[in-house]
Amino acid sequence: MRDRHQTTSHEIERYAALFAKRTRQMRSSAMRDLMAITARPDVISLAGGLPDTSTFPPETFAAITDKIAYESCASALQYGPTEGFEDTKRCIAKVMAEEGMRADPDDMIVTTGGQQVIDLVTKTLVDPGDVVVCEAPTYPGAVPTFQSYEADVVQIEMDSDGMRIDLLEQTLDRLEVEGRRPKFVYTVPTFQNPAGVTLSAPRRQRLVEIARERELLVLEDNPYGLLRYEGEPLPPLRSLDGGVYVLYLGTFSKILSPGIRLGWVVAPAPVLAKINLGKQAVDLCTSSLTQQLVSAYFAEGRWLAYVQDLCGIYRRRRDAMLDALAEFFPQEAEWTQPGGGLFIWATLPDFIDTEDLLAKAIQQESVAFVPGSAAYVDGRGGSSMRLNFSAVSEDDIVEGIRRIGKVIDEQISLYSTFTGKKEDGRAASSSTGRGQDERGALLPNDRLADVVRLPRRPDDTKRGASGS
Amino acid sequence: MRDRHQTTSHEIERYAALFAKRTRQMRSSAMRDLMAITARPDVISLAGGLPDTSTFPPETFAAITDKIAYESCASALQYGPTEGFEDTKRCIAKVMAEEGMRADPDDMIVTTGGQQVIDLVTKTLVDPGDVVVCEAPTYPGAVPTFQSYEADVVQIEMDSDGMRIDLLEQTLDRLEVEGRRPKFVYTVPTFQNPAGVTLSAPRRQRLVEIARERELLVLEDNPYGLLRYEGEPLPPLRSLDGGVYVLYLGTFSKILSPGIRLGWVVAPAPVLAKINLGKQAVDLCTSSLTQQLVSAYFAEGRWLAYVQDLCGIYRRRRDAMLDALAEFFPQEAEWTQPGGGLFIWATLPDFIDTEDLLAKAIQQESVAFVPGSAAYVDGRGGSSMRLNFSAVSEDDIVEGIRRIGKVIDEQISLYSTFTGKKEDGRAASSSTGRGQDERGALLPNDRLADVVRLPRRPDDTKRGASGS
Repeated sequence: MRDRHQTTSHEIERYAALFAKRTRQMRSSAMRDLMAITARPDVISLAGGLPDTSTFPPETFAAITDKIAYESCASALQYGPTEGFEDTKRCIAKVMAEEGMRADPDDMIVTTGGQQVIDLVTKTLVDPGDVVVCEAPTYPGAVPTFQSYEADVVQIEMDSDGMRIDLLEQTLDRLEVEGRRPKFVYTVPTFQNPAGVTLSAPRRQRLVEIARERELLVLEDNPYGLLRYEGEPLPPLRSLDGGVYVLYLGTFSKILSPGIRLGWVVAPAPVLAKINLGKQAVDLCTSSLTQQLVSAYFAEGRWLAYVQDLCGIYRRRRDAMLDALAEFFPQEAEWTQPGGGLFIWATLPDFIDTEDLLAKAIQQESVAFVPGSAAYVDGRGGSSMRLNFSAVSEDDIVEGIRRIGKVIDEQISLYSTFTGKKEDGRAASSSTGRGQDERGALLPNDRLADVVRLPRRPDDTKRGASGS
Repeated sequence: MRDRHQTTSHEIERYAALFAKRTRQMRSSAMRDLMAITARPDVISLAGGLPDTSTFPPETFAAITDKIAYESCASALQYGPTEGFEDTKRCIAKVMAEEGMRADPDDMIVTTGGQQVIDLVTKTLVDPGDVVVCEAPTYPGAVPTFQSYEADVVQIEMDSDGMRIDLLEQTLDRLEVEGRRPKFVYTVPTFQNPAGVTLSAPRRQRLVEIARERELLVLEDNPYGLLRYEGEPLPPLRSLDGGVYVLYLGTFSKILSPGIRLGWVVAPAPVLAKINLGKQAVDLCTSSLTQQLVSAYFAEGRWLAYVQDLCGIYRRRRDAMLDALAEFFPQEAEWTQPGGGLFIWATLPDFIDTEDLLAKAIQQESVAFVPGSAAYVDGRGGSSMRLNFSAVSEDDIVEGIRRIGKVIDEQISLYSTFTGKKEDGRAASSSTGRGQDERGALLPNDRLADVVRLPRRPDDTKRGASGS
C-alpha cells in the first residue's frame, strides 16, 4: 500500500517545476513534525503547546451542544458572516475586559484560530523582502507563516523582562538608515511562547511610544494573559495604545479549546477591512457551529471559573517542572521562571545541539520537547529547548524531565571524554532561582549579540560554564 | 458610537502605506457584501450559495454531539494533526466512492472548508503574474483568491456542455507561444457554480488527455456532484486521470453543513506535502470538533439518505424556479437548465446592467441575486445573474423571480422609452427549454469571443433580442 506513495524523483520534478517561489522555501515547523511522533502513547511529550482539554467537563459540552441543537441548529450548520457572529464577539469583549481592555465588537473579526490572525496580518501587510520584527526566540509557529510571505524576519533579543526595547530602537534606527520600514513588530508580551518571560511595564510603555513616534504597527499576540499563576497583570499593549498602532490577537485555544479553532483580531478599521477581504479569500467565514458553542458556553457564566481551575492545575505543573529541572538538569543549564502561560525555555551548554538531543530523547527515552532552533530564523537557539508543562500530569513532567536530564548527562559525558574537560555538578534541588544569571540574560548568547544573525559557536563552552 | 469608525482620510493614509501589493488590489467579492444585506429578514435572497440547513434533524445533531461529549470530548477540544483525523478521512473516502472514485486516506488533507483548498493550491503554485485558467463564468468566490496571489486569470467560455475544451486548447497554444505555462486549470465540471452546466463526457476525457500531454495540473472542484436531480453521473476528472494531474477538492458544505467548515483536497504526494506546509502556516489544523462531528454522523449510516432527501427538496425548488423564470422573465432572457447543484445562470439583454438591477431589486422589491460580473475578472457578465434555488422555499422562489421580473420589466420599459425600440413579449409558461439557443450558447457574448478580455458592449441589444 505504501509503495505507491514512494514518490520517484521524476514525479517530484514534474510538480516541483510548478511550485511558487514561496513554496520552494517552505519547510515544516519542527513542532508540527514532532506532533506526529509524540502522538505515540508511550512518549511523554513536553513538546506541544497543548492545553489540558481533559479538564473540560463532558456534561458541560453535552449541555451546550444540546442547547445549540434545539435552539439554533440550522444557523449553527449554515455559513455565517465573514467577521463572525455578534454574540461571539460579545463573548470576546468579555474576555478582553477581563484582560483590562475595552473592545468594540465592530472592531474585531472572529478567525479560524489565532494562527489565522498571524497569517492574515502578514498577508495584508508584507510583500516579499519586507521586514517583520519579532522576539528572539519567537513563537515557532509564526516562523513558517512569515517565511510563506517571504518576509525578512529580524529578531530582537530578550531577557527576563521580555524584548530588549533598547535593542529594538537600535535595530529600527539601523533599518531606517537602510531605508527599510518594518511592516510590523510581532510580540507575545505576556508569558511569551517559547521563553515564558513577560515584557515589563516600562518596556510596554516605551514600545507603545516607539510605535506612535515611528508610525509602526505592532501585532500583540496574547493567548496566555489569563493563565497567570502569580503577581499582578500588566496592561496589554493595546490598552496603552488605544488601538491606533497595536493590532490585537486573542484566542479561545488556551482558555477553552484549540479544537474549536476560534481566535480573533482587533484592528483599526482600514486594516480590519483588508483582513476581512483576506479572510473571505482563504475560508469565507469562521465555523458557525464552534462560534455558537462559545456563545452557549459563555451564557452559562462559568467560563472564568474554568480558567481559574486551569490556573490552579497549571501552576502546580509549572512548579513540578521547575523542581524537576533543578533536580535533574546539569548545573550548566539555565531556564526561565514563567509567572504564567505554558512554557519554560531552557538553555544548555553550547556544545549540545538540541535537535540531536531530541532524536536521542525520543529514541532512547520516549520523551519529547521543541528544539530551540525552531524559534529562530537564523539557526540560533541550537542549545536551547522549549518545555511545555500544561499538557501532562505532574508525575509525567517529573519523569519527562528526569529522562531529558539523563540524555543531557550522556551528552556531557561524551563531550568530557572527547575534550578531557570535566562538565558535571548537580544542582541542589532547592535552587529554582537559577534560571537567569545576575544580568537577567535569557540566553548565554545574548551577551554577545545585540540583534540578529549571530552564528552559533558550537566550540564555545565558556558561556555555558559561566552560568553555574 | 459609530462616529469613531468614520475613518478619516489621514487615518487611511497612515495604514495604506503599509499594505502589501496584493492587498491594495483586493476587493470584496460582490457575493460576500450581499450576504450582509440579504441577512435582512424581509429580503428574499436568491443570492447565496447556501444549502437549506433547516432540513437537518436537530435530534440527530444532539445525538452525535452527545456521543462526542461522552466518548471523545477531550480530543474533540484538542489540536489535531494538520492533515486531519483518520476517521474523518475514512468518511471522505466513502463520499468519494459514492462519486465513483477510490481515494486513499494518505493522499488527502482535511481542510477548513473547500475554499481553503482553492487558497492553498493557489498559494502552493502561483507566483505573481502566473496564469490560472478557469471557466467563464467561474465560481465568484475563487476570483478574490486568485487575485490575492496576483494571478493572471484567463477564463475559457462555456456552453451547455461546460468548458469549451477546443477554446482551452487554443488558449494553451497561445500561452505556449508566449512562453507562459499555466500553473493550473480550475474547473467545477459538475453542476457548475455559477452556470449550472455540466462538462460532457467527451470533454472530460479530452481535458484529462490535455493535462497528460501538457503536464498541466487541474483542480477539480466538486461540491455538488451528489446533488443530482436527473440523469446518470459522469466520471469525475480524477477518476479518469487516476490522480496524476488532477487535484480534487471536496466538501461537506453541500451534503451536510457549511457551518462546520470542512472540506478536503486529494493530491499527488509532492503537492500534498506543500499544501500541508501551507496549512500549518495558515491555521495549524482543521477543527477537531467538527471533524469528529462528521465521524459520529457517518457512523449513524444515514448520511446518503439525507443527501437523497436534499435532492428531492432541491429538485422541486429547481423546477419551481424554471417555471417561474418562464412565467416572469421577459422573452429576451436566457437561462441554463441545471441537472443538479444549486444554481441557474440567467442572461438578460445587453443593455441591462445586473449590478444596477440588483440595487433596484433590493431597494424596491427586497429580493437579491448575484450579479454576473462577480464571476469574471474582466468586467464581462454584466447582463447576467446567478440565481440560487436551494436556500428558500418554493413559494419564495416564485415570489422572488416575480419581483426580479418586475424590476427587469421596468428597465426594459425605460430603455424602450429612451430608444423608441419596443422590447417586450412574455414567454409562454411552458417554455422551460428556452434557456439556451440552438447552438447551446451559454452567454450571448460567447459567440463573439473565444477566450478573455472581451469588453462588454452595453449598446448591443441584438444578441439579447435574437435569443427569443
